[in-house]
Amino acid sequence: MNMSEPSNIEKAENEMIEREFQALLTDYLKSNHRKKTDIIERAFRFANEAHKGIRRRSGEPYILHPIAVARIACKEIGLGSTSICSALLHDVVEDTEYTVEDIENLFGRKIAQIVAGLTKISGGIFGDQASAQAENFRKLLLTMSEDIRVILIKMADRLHNMRTLGSMLPSKQYKIAGETLYIYAPLAHRLGLFAIKTELEDLSFKYEHPDAYNEISQKIAETEANRQAIYKDFAAPIVKKLKETGLKFEMKARVKSVYSIWNKMQSKNIPFEEVYDLYAVRIIFDPDKDEDEKKECWNIYSIITDIYKLHPERIRDWVSRPKANGYRALHVTVMGPDGNWIEVQIRSRKMDDIAERGFAAHWKYKVGESDEESELDIWLKTIKEILENPEPNALDFLDTIKLNLFASEIFVFTPKGELKTLPKDATALDFAFTLHSDMGYHCIAAKVNHKLVPISQKLQSGDQVEILTSRSQSPKPEWVQFVTTAKAKTRLQAALRKDRKAIIAKGEEIFKNFLKENNFAESLQNIDKLLNHYRIDKKDELFYRLGENEISLNENTKKLLKEKNQNVFMKYLRIPFGGNNKTPQTIEKGDTCPTEKIDRKATYLLKDDGNHKNYSLATCCHPIPGDDVLGYVNENEQVIVHKRSCPVAMRLKSSFGSRLVSTQWDNNIIESFPATIQIKGIDHVGVLNQITQIISTDLAVNIRNLSIDAKDGLFTGTLSVLVHDAKDVERLCNDIKKVKEVKSAIRIDN
Amino acid sequence: MNMSEPSNIEKAENEMIEREFQALLTDYLKSNHRKKTDIIERAFRFANEAHKGIRRRSGEPYILHPIAVARIACKEIGLGSTSICSALLHDVVEDTEYTVEDIENLFGRKIAQIVAGLTKISGGIFGDQASAQAENFRKLLLTMSEDIRVILIKMADRLHNMRTLGSMLPSKQYKIAGETLYIYAPLAHRLGLFAIKTELEDLSFKYEHPDAYNEISQKIAETEANRQAIYKDFAAPIVKKLKETGLKFEMKARVKSVYSIWNKMQSKNIPFEEVYDLYAVRIIFDPDKDEDEKKECWNIYSIITDIYKLHPERIRDWVSRPKANGYRALHVTVMGPDGNWIEVQIRSRKMDDIAERGFAAHWKYKVGESDEESELDIWLKTIKEILENPEPNALDFLDTIKLNLFASEIFVFTPKGELKTLPKDATALDFAFTLHSDMGYHCIAAKVNHKLVPISQKLQSGDQVEILTSRSQSPKPEWVQFVTTAKAKTRLQAALRKDRKAIIAKGEEIFKNFLKENNFAESLQNIDKLLNHYRIDKKDELFYRLGENEISLNENTKKLLKEKNQNVFMKYLRIPFGGNNKTPQTIEKGDTCPTEKIDRKATYLLKDDGNHKNYSLATCCHPIPGDDVLGYVNENEQVIVHKRSCPVAMRLKSSFGSRLVSTQWDNNIIESFPATIQIKGIDHVGVLNQITQIISTDLAVNIRNLSIDAKDGLFTGTLSVLVHDAKDVERLCNDIKKVKEVKSAIRIDN
Repeated sequence: MNMSEPSNIEKAENEMIEREFQALLTDYLKSNHRKKTDIIERAFRFANEAHKGIRRRSGEPYILHPIAVARIACKEIGLGSTSICSALLHDVVEDTEYTVEDIENLFGRKIAQIVAGLTKISGGIFGDQASAQAENFRKLLLTMSEDIRVILIKMADRLHNMRTLGSMLPSKQYKIAGETLYIYAPLAHRLGLFAIKTELEDLSFKYEHPDAYNEISQKIAETEANRQAIYKDFAAPIVKKLKETGLKFEMKARVKSVYSIWNKMQSKNIPFEEVYDLYAVRIIFDPDKDEDEKKECWNIYSIITDIYKLHPERIRDWVSRPKANGYRALHVTVMGPDGNWIEVQIRSRKMDDIAERGFAAHWKYKVGESDEESELDIWLKTIKEILENPEPNALDFLDTIKLNLFASEIFVFTPKGELKTLPKDATALDFAFTLHSDMGYHCIAAKVNHKLVPISQKLQSGDQVEILTSRSQSPKPEWVQFVTTAKAKTRLQAALRKDRKAIIAKGEEIFKNFLKENNFAESLQNIDKLLNHYRIDKKDELFYRLGENEISLNENTKKLLKEKNQNVFMKYLRIPFGGNNKTPQTIEKGDTCPTEKIDRKATYLLKDDGNHKNYSLATCCHPIPGDDVLGYVNENEQVIVHKRSCPVAMRLKSSFGSRLVSTQWDNNIIESFPATIQIKGIDHVGVLNQITQIISTDLAVNIRNLSIDAKDGLFTGTLSVLVHDAKDVERLCNDIKKVKEVKSAIRIDN
Repeated sequence: MNMSEPSNIEKAENEMIEREFQALLTDYLKSNHRKKTDIIERAFRFANEAHKGIRRRSGEPYILHPIAVARIACKEIGLGSTSICSALLHDVVEDTEYTVEDIENLFGRKIAQIVAGLTKISGGIFGDQASAQAENFRKLLLTMSEDIRVILIKMADRLHNMRTLGSMLPSKQYKIAGETLYIYAPLAHRLGLFAIKTELEDLSFKYEHPDAYNEISQKIAETEANRQAIYKDFAAPIVKKLKETGLKFEMKARVKSVYSIWNKMQSKNIPFEEVYDLYAVRIIFDPDKDEDEKKECWNIYSIITDIYKLHPERIRDWVSRPKANGYRALHVTVMGPDGNWIEVQIRSRKMDDIAERGFAAHWKYKVGESDEESELDIWLKTIKEILENPEPNALDFLDTIKLNLFASEIFVFTPKGELKTLPKDATALDFAFTLHSDMGYHCIAAKVNHKLVPISQKLQSGDQVEILTSRSQSPKPEWVQFVTTAKAKTRLQAALRKDRKAIIAKGEEIFKNFLKENNFAESLQNIDKLLNHYRIDKKDELFYRLGENEISLNENTKKLLKEKNQNVFMKYLRIPFGGNNKTPQTIEKGDTCPTEKIDRKATYLLKDDGNHKNYSLATCCHPIPGDDVLGYVNENEQVIVHKRSCPVAMRLKSSFGSRLVSTQWDNNIIESFPATIQIKGIDHVGVLNQITQIISTDLAVNIRNLSIDAKDGLFTGTLSVLVHDAKDVERLCNDIKKVKEVKSAIRIDN
């Protein structure tokens, strides 16, 4: 079939492809799955032929990508032959002439279904329509709820794309990174794929904040030797005692991920040097019998707490009560010999497998009837329910789903002692919806631990909650603020919409009756007169207010309607009366950039990969030169510039990829920008003087405002200054910290 | 030797005495102590002879009391022959002609010392001087720090007195009960005598609030069968599993003490029916080997949490980290089959012994080098330190000591990881004083978990605390509010007094120089002129203000001093100038009744066991007819009536026994009294109407004020009414609770 002899390069490439595939087979044969290498071999040969001659952006043969995805699925997620085949074939239908039917004929129904699922969700990830990503994500969840392996292979696909992100166009890199951080990493967490979640976060972070990433990585490396020495001191007596018991175990120190260290630095406003829990210690043991694993965990606990002092409030028994994502381990925090708390995670080999590789690993251990599986089932059911009540607003939908990927969870009990898992910050109203939608709709109050509380009460782990209902109660719009679970939010909004529709209908009825009784025509003009009078935009809103009795029709209305019509021509087009309710397709309010407020024009300060000229700085995060930024191109072709770490920017990245541009600061800036510094320290005569002196002798900055608040010998000051760039702020902070009484000085968002 | 043949009554009594003594011997022979029955026998014969013919108020031969005390010391505290002999002899020196020397000659030095200690503290407990009790208590602590057995025998003595309190004069009963509750029960807790502490509390409560005591006891009895049934359901699967492991154990349900149930009802404002944690489950096991006990605790934990759902926030490992009073156990709370949380206390036999009988039990187990002993040592050392820095104010001294009997404790760590035990609510400043007095004096701020906080910051268990000091810092008077530990308080006050003295001296110097420079005489008249001018009472205060520059001497002062002297005769007597600083002995301000504010005259409402006529109701607790009350006779022979549960009354009871009278309400009261009711419920149209209607149709009460506050669908109302007695309030609460939306209605203190 070959048109010519393979060249040396081709030969070398073929050998490389073969090598990679053999590595996949080796991984597979090491696993506990039944050994079905035949079908895997066939899938590989088929995919290899199908993608022949195609290359990735990096120049490699395309087939290396499906092989890599299959290896991740096999080795890092623990999936079997069906998944491996699907992974190998996942781009065939998308990128070649073969159809799902072809796949079904060759590899059977199951693999074809999974490939079809993956194909459905592969296109348009970075499409041009604003809501395309949300829609795409919805498809992904739908296929997931059919077969969880679709999402697991998708995870493997995303992970490999992130690992090879360097060869993508730089302008696309941080869009993909942003989306990964916003949705894929939380989803990986929810599925219990802890190792993958961590890697996705770190890779995303690396592309979003390359400088910070490098700085932290370097500091981790620099402090490694010192950390190892401390760890050795800490571990030695534990290892000795554990060995005496004859237990088979391994003990190791695990440094936190770069991303989670950065997160801690950000959330606590501290430098790297003040992150004291840089690592955790992990003890992984092989119990003699599986049923001894829990007992063994506590034996190890006993030995450790005999040696080191226990933190009394930080025993976490995830063995007796696993997390919703299936995580099991016993966590205990003890005081290390250097005077720092050390968290020790005690796990059996099996628990460790589950922790690292998630639910897929469960299947391997076949714990069919256990709680963990059913927690997954419950979650999948919730996802399905949300999908059945789709939000009209795409971005809200994404947020709602994200809510359900909760990282922290609490355990709450019904009056009969039944346990329910809820996200942190869930309220009594959330709990009511968890029990039954009807309980939610009719909830009037709750008893938490036998004490009467309002429905807005936030719940704590261990709370026992009784819901009080009344038939006469109905959902209220303000309740939306009281719920955090996806289920409660979706149900509540659906109910409110239904209510709203009924009220609008009632209002329309009232209006029509009024017109009829007073012999006015049911004309567009008459509606417009009222809309203008009340400064209302849409007639539904007018009818809603009428239905709610917020507006009433009276003699004044009659007068108004008798007035001569003037200049409502524009409205004619916009608001057709009665009949078809459809308005021309525009972007819904919630879909647009959440902040159109802008700080200032900044046209000459920035440049980007497009050719935009019209820049503005966002007020939500006040970016200043030197910050990592991105630009959002709004409908007026104006580029609104956000910090990359700004929460608004996070949402934009995951949903408006096509509207984002990579923005750089011009190097030659002479303008000043506002920044805020928070100073904390010990109150002392003259401190304020010293601080102001430092600021005023610093020629690069100007004080705009300084306010100081002192209490019990400490002060907190907020200093607003005008600076040229981020480096100015950093230098100023360092100078202020030289004042003896000042204990911290950091830039904060306004 | 007998003057006549013993009568039949005498014979019977002698037999009874002999029987009781034999019972003591039997108890002793069952204990683990070396068997020194000889000396015990001798001590008994001696005491029996010495007390011959003396009877207690109940009419029994006196010797029965020392025997009973000795039995408690032996059986309930676990003490040995030295203590038993001392207990038998404890009233001989006090009540007979024998001296401590006689005891030493007959029974040796050790026993004589203990008896001397007990004699020293036995007199004047209910003496007439206001501060006698505090002084007496100080002696008790002094002897305790010499030999802890003194206080242990004193505890046995007090317990027996409380058990036989019924034969005391009623007017003395609740004074003794009050003192027991205020000092002896907390002291028993601090010494780890848990069973004795509980009994002392219950007995005190029984005499202070007989109706409440009976009501709760009865309700406990009534609910017993139901509780047993639930417990059986709960226990069965645990017992089954534990038996399978071959463990020797017993499992039982322990109902809370009447007093602690009442306390919970009071603090949470709930009726008996809403106290859900009425009992705890205790599992006591006999480990094969002593060193296995910790491991075994966690094995039992594993079994229980396999069966029942764990409360994730309520694991308390007092095995790895015992309480300061030596208590060791593993506490875990699980969800019972009836939907109520159940606390399970897991203890080895040894831990249980220590828990019930305290430190004395430690000696039995000879855990000489363990942490528990040293915690006691630390505590005794602190007590000694406090005694060396005695408070000039007796009542403050009592309070300071009481502070150190803390029931709840937290564990805090130094930067190097060293552990310190502190009472709940201790601050950073307390911690500084715990480390070293100098750290306390110079403390400017602290870092808690590496975060800068003021010295007033309250600490949490597990906090790591670094103290920041400065040589230029010195103790400030406002710091007194920031400390709760006895040590910090004592040291701080001593330092402040010292400072004050220096400032007074400085002020006196300033004053004398001023007089000299301006040729005024150093006369009493001149001081008095300034005292009158500034309306200051004492010259020390004047000098202090001069020293602090709060007052300055200037031209006006000169004018003032040149004025003619008038009417300062009274002051001549009170304020001698220079030299001897002593002022006539009066009761210090803090020693008087903390509230002289009175609500109203109530002369005709009350009667007492004295012949007082002049009654007033205290404003601190607003007693109304029907409340359990007591009267405090102030210096003007006015009787101020408090509720017995009022915190002010608690202090009075323990320190002004002689000034208290037992007060009863007159049955024929037609006046009205103010009371306050708190109402909570679900906000609903018409609720307020219904409530006011109920109140206004109730002829016995008058509304004075009703304020309602609603939030998120719940309301809280405070209702001030005028009623005739406590029963009116109760009836009104019950009526209000009949409104469907009302969830609770209870009388509260204003």
